[in-house]
Amino acid sequence: MITHISPAGSMDLLSQLEVERLKKTAASDLYQLYRNCTLAVLNSGSHTDNSKELLDKYKSFDVNVVRRERGIKLELSNAPEHAFVDGNIIKGIQEHLFSVLRDIVYVNMHLADNQRLNLTNASHITNLVFGILRNAGALTPGIEPNLIVCWGGHSINATEYQYTREVGNELGLRELNICTGCGPGAMEGPMKGAAIGHAKQRYYDQRYLGLTEPSIIAAEPPNPIVNELVIMPDIEKRLEAFVRMAHGIVIFPGGAGTAEELLYILGIMMHPDNSEQPLPIVLTGPKESEAYFQSIDKFIGDTLGKEAQRHYEIVVDDPERVAKIMKSKMADVRQHRKDIGDAYSFNWSLKIEPEFQLPFDPTHDNMASLDLHLNQPPENLAAALRQAFSGIVAGNVKAEGIREIELHGPFSLDGDAILMKKMDKLLRDFVEQDRMKLPGGSAYEPCYKIKTSE
Amino acid sequence: MITHISPAGSMDLLSQLEVERLKKTAASDLYQLYRNCTLAVLNSGSHTDNSKELLDKYKSFDVNVVRRERGIKLELSNAPEHAFVDGNIIKGIQEHLFSVLRDIVYVNMHLADNQRLNLTNASHITNLVFGILRNAGALTPGIEPNLIVCWGGHSINATEYQYTREVGNELGLRELNICTGCGPGAMEGPMKGAAIGHAKQRYYDQRYLGLTEPSIIAAEPPNPIVNELVIMPDIEKRLEAFVRMAHGIVIFPGGAGTAEELLYILGIMMHPDNSEQPLPIVLTGPKESEAYFQSIDKFIGDTLGKEAQRHYEIVVDDPERVAKIMKSKMADVRQHRKDIGDAYSFNWSLKIEPEFQLPFDPTHDNMASLDLHLNQPPENLAAALRQAFSGIVAGNVKAEGIREIELHGPFSLDGDAILMKKMDKLLRDFVEQDRMKLPGGSAYEPCYKIKTSE
Amino acid sequence: MITHISPAGSMDLLSQLEVERLKKTAASDLYQLYRNCTLAVLNSGSHTDNSKELLDKYKSFDVNVVRRERGIKLELSNAPEHAFVDGNIIKGIQEHLFSVLRDIVYVNMHLADNQRLNLTNASHITNLVFGILRNAGALTPGIEPNLIVCWGGHSINATEYQYTREVGNELGLRELNICTGCGPGAMEGPMKGAAIGHAKQRYYDQRYLGLTEPSIIAAEPPNPIVNELVIMPDIEKRLEAFVRMAHGIVIFPGGAGTAEELLYILGIMMHPDNSEQPLPIVLTGPKESEAYFQSIDKFIGDTLGKEAQRHYEIVVDDPERVAKIMKSKMADVRQHRKDIGDAYSFNWSLKIEPEFQLPFDPTHDNMASLDLHLNQPPENLAAALRQAFSGIVAGNVKAEGIREIELHGPFSLDGDAILMKKMDKLLRDFVEQDRMKLPGGSAYEPCYKIKTSE
Amino acid sequence: MITHISPAGSMDLLSQLEVERLKKTAASDLYQLYRNCTLAVLNSGSHTDNSKELLDKYKSFDVNVVRRERGIKLELSNAPEHAFVDGNIIKGIQEHLFSVLRDIVYVNMHLADNQRLNLTNASHITNLVFGILRNAGALTPGIEPNLIVCWGGHSINATEYQYTREVGNELGLRELNICTGCGPGAMEGPMKGAAIGHAKQRYYDQRYLGLTEPSIIAAEPPNPIVNELVIMPDIEKRLEAFVRMAHGIVIFPGGAGTAEELLYILGIMMHPDNSEQPLPIVLTGPKESEAYFQSIDKFIGDTLGKEAQRHYEIVVDDPERVAKIMKSKMADVRQHRKDIGDAYSFNWSLKIEPEFQLPFDPTHDNMASLDLHLNQPPENLAAALRQAFSGIVAGNVKAEGIREIELHGPFSLDGDAILMKKMDKLLRDFVEQDRMKLPGGSAYEPCYKIKTSE
Repeated sequence: MITHISPAGSMDLLSQLEVERLKKTAASDLYQLYRNCTLAVLNSGSHTDNSKELLDKYKSFDVNVVRRERGIKLELSNAPEHAFVDGNIIKGIQEHLFSVLRDIVYVNMHLADNQRLNLTNASHITNLVFGILRNAGALTPGIEPNLIVCWGGHSINATEYQYTREVGNELGLRELNICTGCGPGAMEGPMKGAAIGHAKQRYYDQRYLGLTEPSIIAAEPPNPIVNELVIMPDIEKRLEAFVRMAHGIVIFPGGAGTAEELLYILGIMMHPDNSEQPLPIVLTGPKESEAYFQSIDKFIGDTLGKEAQRHYEIVVDDPERVAKIMKSKMADVRQHRKDIGDAYSFNWSLKIEPEFQLPFDPTHDNMASLDLHLNQPPENLAAALRQAFSGIVAGNVKAEGIREIELHGPFSLDGDAILMKKMDKLLRDFVEQDRMKLPGGSAYEPCYKIKTSE
Repeated sequence: MITHISPAGSMDLLSQLEVERLKKTAASDLYQLYRNCTLAVLNSGSHTDNSKELLDKYKSFDVNVVRRERGIKLELSNAPEHAFVDGNIIKGIQEHLFSVLRDIVYVNMHLADNQRLNLTNASHITNLVFGILRNAGALTPGIEPNLIVCWGGHSINATEYQYTREVGNELGLRELNICTGCGPGAMEGPMKGAAIGHAKQRYYDQRYLGLTEPSIIAAEPPNPIVNELVIMPDIEKRLEAFVRMAHGIVIFPGGAGTAEELLYILGIMMHPDNSEQPLPIVLTGPKESEAYFQSIDKFIGDTLGKEAQRHYEIVVDDPERVAKIMKSKMADVRQHRKDIGDAYSFNWSLKIEPEFQLPFDPTHDNMASLDLHLNQPPENLAAALRQAFSGIVAGNVKAEGIREIELHGPFSLDGDAILMKKMDKLLRDFVEQDRMKLPGGSAYEPCYKIKTSE
Repeated sequence: MITHISPAGSMDLLSQLEVERLKKTAASDLYQLYRNCTLAVLNSGSHTDNSKELLDKYKSFDVNVVRRERGIKLELSNAPEHAFVDGNIIKGIQEHLFSVLRDIVYVNMHLADNQRLNLTNASHITNLVFGILRNAGALTPGIEPNLIVCWGGHSINATEYQYTREVGNELGLRELNICTGCGPGAMEGPMKGAAIGHAKQRYYDQRYLGLTEPSIIAAEPPNPIVNELVIMPDIEKRLEAFVRMAHGIVIFPGGAGTAEELLYILGIMMHPDNSEQPLPIVLTGPKESEAYFQSIDKFIGDTLGKEAQRHYEIVVDDPERVAKIMKSKMADVRQHRKDIGDAYSFNWSLKIEPEFQLPFDPTHDNMASLDLHLNQPPENLAAALRQAFSGIVAGNVKAEGIREIELHGPFSLDGDAILMKKMDKLLRDFVEQDRMKLPGGSAYEPCYKIKTSE
Repeated sequence: MITHISPAGSMDLLSQLEVERLKKTAASDLYQLYRNCTLAVLNSGSHTDNSKELLDKYKSFDVNVVRRERGIKLELSNAPEHAFVDGNIIKGIQEHLFSVLRDIVYVNMHLADNQRLNLTNASHITNLVFGILRNAGALTPGIEPNLIVCWGGHSINATEYQYTREVGNELGLRELNICTGCGPGAMEGPMKGAAIGHAKQRYYDQRYLGLTEPSIIAAEPPNPIVNELVIMPDIEKRLEAFVRMAHGIVIFPGGAGTAEELLYILGIMMHPDNSEQPLPIVLTGPKESEAYFQSIDKFIGDTLGKEAQRHYEIVVDDPERVAKIMKSKMADVRQHRKDIGDAYSFNWSLKIEPEFQLPFDPTHDNMASLDLHLNQPPENLAAALRQAFSGIVAGNVKAEGIREIELHGPFSLDGDAILMKKMDKLLRDFVEQDRMKLPGGSAYEPCYKIKTSE
């Protein structure tokens, strides 16, 4: 079955050269990337967290960009049915289709060939992140700080999910906007809650911003509430986009991915240059999830130390308090940006070290050679731990990672006995709390083995 | 505590004369009416269904309209706290405050003194209903038929509530708008569901229209999702507004009020002049509520006959089907209006007999003298039954009615033995199904006695 | 030829009763009034200043309001061709057609029957003026004072016309809005000039407000630049609307009508209660028109005294200075309204005595019995002189007045020898300066005779 | 004097790298280019047509892009005063400032380094033109064909200027939009006229699109009515932008620049691949300018032949007819684009040969070696003549060209005796008709000498 989709939201004009390069006949990697992201977006609302499954299920799916007198159109073949209502595509999904096109075109055409952008240079990476977000219309000048990044698992239980909605509602009632990694669970709940809060406040500048990247989008497709979708080129640029756009961060319970995010932001906040940054970070969940925060807080304290714990606050079972903390800190964020002349919409002054910026490729070799020892500066340790968790996420849900594990068996992680024990404990806690698989799925099988160097 | 509220939505300018007449010092009925409706709106989200309780709780509440250089302001004293977030009024509620002001001013100032409107004349009543809706901005020309009226109980169980949301979501995904009596339960669920459906479709002309009237607003305060609120002067004009605005009607489970609404629309649809009216009516609920529809369908069949049953369809446990029926019938409604040159936004051609238009005052005398016999044309019987249920609603939840019952004991209803038995059975079914009190409230005490004339 | 016109701008819904009363078959005065105003609006841009000529030319013109499924439509028969471009009505004129309908309906239906409005009572007249303007959407709360009323002749020379455009451009560059009596000459020039100034400033809240009334609209049809048109019921309510809406007044050269307007505002500003009103009034024209201002300034000084002259400033040949005066006074107007709690959009606190509010009917008897003597308080004299000039305008350009003069000969004006001489001198100056006929028209024949009582 | 200007319209966010490269300290050519275009825009409304004069007059002018918390700001030093009203910049000019920034950044940063764009390749040039226009927001999909390009002299007489306004008014009344080279005279008149026509029609999608390029902007600064300004990188890309965006072309009287434009479009339209292109071209002016059209029509007939004359129509003194021709042809344009699947907003299918695309640098050598002979295909001759006239424009008004002439004396043009005589005759006609200097300026001194090869 073939459907034609008109542009919505953005990217309604392409040049002849741009259309040319996205053609299937080119047999290019670019087409594959584009096709897979498109399929993921069409799969919104389905509940697999396994990219490979999705790709296998829709092998006959095809997308073709065609030029028409009123702009361009997408020609879809054999698209997933649940993206349509009575034969018409859901408009939220339609917008997402064109967000994918916009970002793929921008990153791969305008920037790939640009010599001036030297992508091992920190400042150039940051300028690229900025360029993608600006081109996506995600950086609106003149808006007061109000964007709360929410992190947390895509596979949380019903009580936790309801809690994320309540936090969202309280944030929405205070006219704060939401940014998540898009996907189900803790990435969807705050948006749905905020949508109701915003409706009660007749708040029409509502933003439900989803930041994703090609290797994760299939496992965590954006829900249709997302009204701004940006596809960053890789996990590190996505993380940088999160923290440079965030005016506050709320972390809900989650698994390895959430741990990665927490380690990432802590590693950055502990950098001496960032000591004046007023970014509020709150870890929160319902009463029933208290154990989770104890596990993670203990792990942080034991590995990165008290200094790291200073950067966040844990709030148990109090959505209103979470929202009040965020709201009250917005004035500080605003003042700080004003004082140093930095943009409200993009935190240029946040110092991010290269090890947090450069892509980490989770091959078996790279995983095995991570420097997981306690006798190093805590920022460095945070960086290494972040990479370890990043690899575990890849092994769990990303198509590429799953393939690697199928071929070569589990990753092996090597480090201090004490540290590795703590890490294993944390990961086992996650497994026990059902944070590393979808409810109803098959039992979780770890994609890593802990070794301890003598 | 005194708060000043600026206008939102509408009615931001009043003349000196209009402000004068709303003053408390005038000790007028108008002030009382205005004050009580204002209080009800501020009480949005609270869950009592007893008007008297509310009025008793906020005896010290006061409202004062003051003129300012940028228009008018409302000065509130001792307003319910839950209308505010961090000290600021929720904007949805703020809009409702000014909708109340707008409609009170319109009805009581512009029309009360107008000699040309003779309110026992059917055509004049209809013109008044039209005038109020037009002044409220609720009649937008040029919009295709898409307004679905949803009726049902304010006190439904969790399964039923979830079902109303799902129906709302499906209606919203099809870009249909929602009109209810506003209040909790089946009046809120379809709106919340549609809000999510509309968001997915990026549908920005969403309407969550609440039609209420002064004697019911305190018991069923509008939830803040309602983005158009109209206060009609009495129950009959509210019912007329519903059916002249509706392009389709969905009826969820409910109690006496819902029965009143169903009898009202059936009485009208059975009028020979309305035989060509293409208004779709669907009774629907989850699997668990099937018994309810059996009770009511049987009662209709037994009293008004097969002819009456022809006007509605019962759909059990299938939200998508409900939405598809409504969506597909919109084309017929449109064509019919086009063919006879009637407005899309207001069904002038629907014939409504005076007994459905003239206010029924549920005194003990009026209730006792209702003509509840089977040997009369079914439209007439429908009219009399409608009035009987209307009186029962008053005795249950309206301040005036509760007072009457407290003073003079239950109403006595008199009629055919067979008919009265059926009616009693239906009402007992409602009680059994918990449809005539709020969950967790005290046991329901009927406000009527069935007598049967020999 | 029959054309159907859809609503634009406002008034797209009428009730059955309202449509009924506007029907031609009703043979009502209301139909005639409505038809004539409609014809005048369609005649926009034509250059006769004689109402009778227009009405005679389009005797077969007819208008009929019909209800349709998407609202109402106007059915025009034999409408003037120049209202159309390639067979389609010019949208500006289309909007004006519905402004006429809106105001005729409002004044004649809602208010005519309203007992509470006693129209010999000053406060009720003011409330009526307010009601009409509010219903027309002309009172927007929340807008800072910025409305400049421009008065002046419809029959000015090319140099004067160009000057009014330049003043308009300078006002527009300062984001000031324009209100005039609508019509050609000094009522059109400032609007066209401001339109260019506003375009340069990308000022999108531009208002070109035309205030007219049924007896003058045919002689001075609104030009299509007018984007808000209000038809007040008579000349006195139109004058009251001007001065209660004005935040500043600019007076260009003109004839008897302009003299009437100047006398009106001076009579009001001289009232002791208005001594604190900060309304800026500027008389201005090009170098070539200096004589005009000398005539009028001398007449004011000689009749109303120095006290009257204090209220205005004369600026010759300096458009930028006119605009700077107006702009700089806006802050005072704003502060004054704030201090006394009066609306920005409507000057409730301006005291207007009944003789300025009650309609003056310019019959031969009424004209003959005007009290035109110097030995009375200057406000009273201003009122009487205002009425004399009003009668002269009627005799010159209004259908009713022209008929009276044709039947009974010129009005006779009677008063102090000195005063009457001054008045005759002023009127003769106007004639000499060609201010009392259209350029190219037949020589002016005065509609009055000056008598002087012994 | 230093002024800070906030963004308006577009380009409110720049990356650190982009700001860096525009800095004065970089002593870069880019800064000079940017500074000069900025100065030209600020000079809007001044009436010199000599770029050098302007640059000399404001030697101390400086512009600096600074980043601020709400985006960027421009810091201007010693800016021309007439860009301001009471100390505030005119918003139209403010928007133009940021259009300049937007296009300079786009062309010089995104594209300069892009290897894939090989700018001697026709398809790549067209893609660049498209990219610039898209980035400027000038290509709006979904808009029906309605853009009329108006060409003609910046130095026309008052009668001709008034005529261009009337044509503009008639185009505006038909809801057609205007695109010109921006500047005074025939580039301003149609926009001002259309602005009034659009206002009468309440047409709010009005476009007054100015296409300019760095070497001409100083001599022909955009008037503030221009609401979309695009700075193309050179004269050839500007011409290509004109013809790919145009849905119709109106040519008013003008001098060498207008002749260049006419030769350009004729050379393209005569290409066999363009035989089906339905682009209407009308040459028009008032009665008084008939001689001009006779000169030019004769020149075309004599040099390019009857085939060339077939592509345009001459309309004398009939603005309504011009507008009717354009309006009626829009349907053909629309159908053609639909039939071949080409964009409404950008005419991809128009064939343009390299000699019309590649920049022509008017050095003395290049001018001297133009192939000005009759024995060649007419398209080739059109191309060579276009280049000759382009060089003459440069010698007349462009800073670079004037400098060349000052250094090396007049260009020498060499060709067939017959052809050169005709060309000299045409240019002398222009001089006689005062088309090659500004009114009131010093006598025109030709910047070329005609030689004729034996």
